[in-house]
Amino acid sequence: MNDKVNLEQAFSQFSEYWSPQVAAELNGQHVRLAKLKGEFVWHAHENEDEMFLVIRGELTLRLRDRDVKLNAGEFFVVPRGVEHLPIALEEVCVLVFEPAETLNTGNVRNERTRTDLERLDR
Amino acid sequence: MNDKVNLEQAFSQFSEYWSPQVAAELNGQHVRLAKLKGEFVWHAHENEDEMFLVIRGELTLRLRDRDVKLNAGEFFVVPRGVEHLPIALEEVCVLVFEPAETLNTGNVRNERTRTDLERLDR
Repeated sequence: MNDKVNLEQAFSQFSEYWSPQVAAELNGQHVRLAKLKGEFVWHAHENEDEMFLVIRGELTLRLRDRDVKLNAGEFFVVPRGVEHLPIALEEVCVLVFEPAETLNTGNVRNERTRTDLERLDR
Repeated sequence: MNDKVNLEQAFSQFSEYWSPQVAAELNGQHVRLAKLKGEFVWHAHENEDEMFLVIRGELTLRLRDRDVKLNAGEFFVVPRGVEHLPIALEEVCVLVFEPAETLNTGNVRNERTRTDLERLDR
């Protein structure tokens, strides 16, 4: 059986930005941990809702009609089909909860796209 | 569109122990917030994996073969079918990810069972 995950310890295990690590899988969903810095790309997920829970730092989720600012201890669910652009002025540590088949860049494929995600050691 | 959730603020909105509040729903899953104190009941969920992320306090998940102790910033996934007994010596605030149809007492029905869960205001 898997062991528990300590978030602080897990985030210390990797340093690459915009490269989600799979921390757990349950009910067909992934718990992914990511470090973000800078601006990502506008994208949407056609069939997947995506939850961002900020663990450290401040994340802006830019939507077409407004900005959602998330500090540590705050989360937001981007509904499927909604375009969003994550922006991190400084480093952000975020926990993402979404279906296991979710592509990080959604309907966009470019050099930021990550397939074959790494799994964190416990 | 829904707004963000601030966990600290959300936990200040209710006080009843062992009474999960639905903070968000996505992809058929619930994000539930619960305050725990004391000992729950042994139970298992036949078809649902259940993730406990401790936000405040210290939670023990007693399994038949060991105890898993979770402090703030730590999570554990109880796989489907695995009996567990949550124990909180002092008040614990916990975020739970699980399928929306999950019954809090799993395969047990008693006075601790909660149906028609409340939804937190944003």
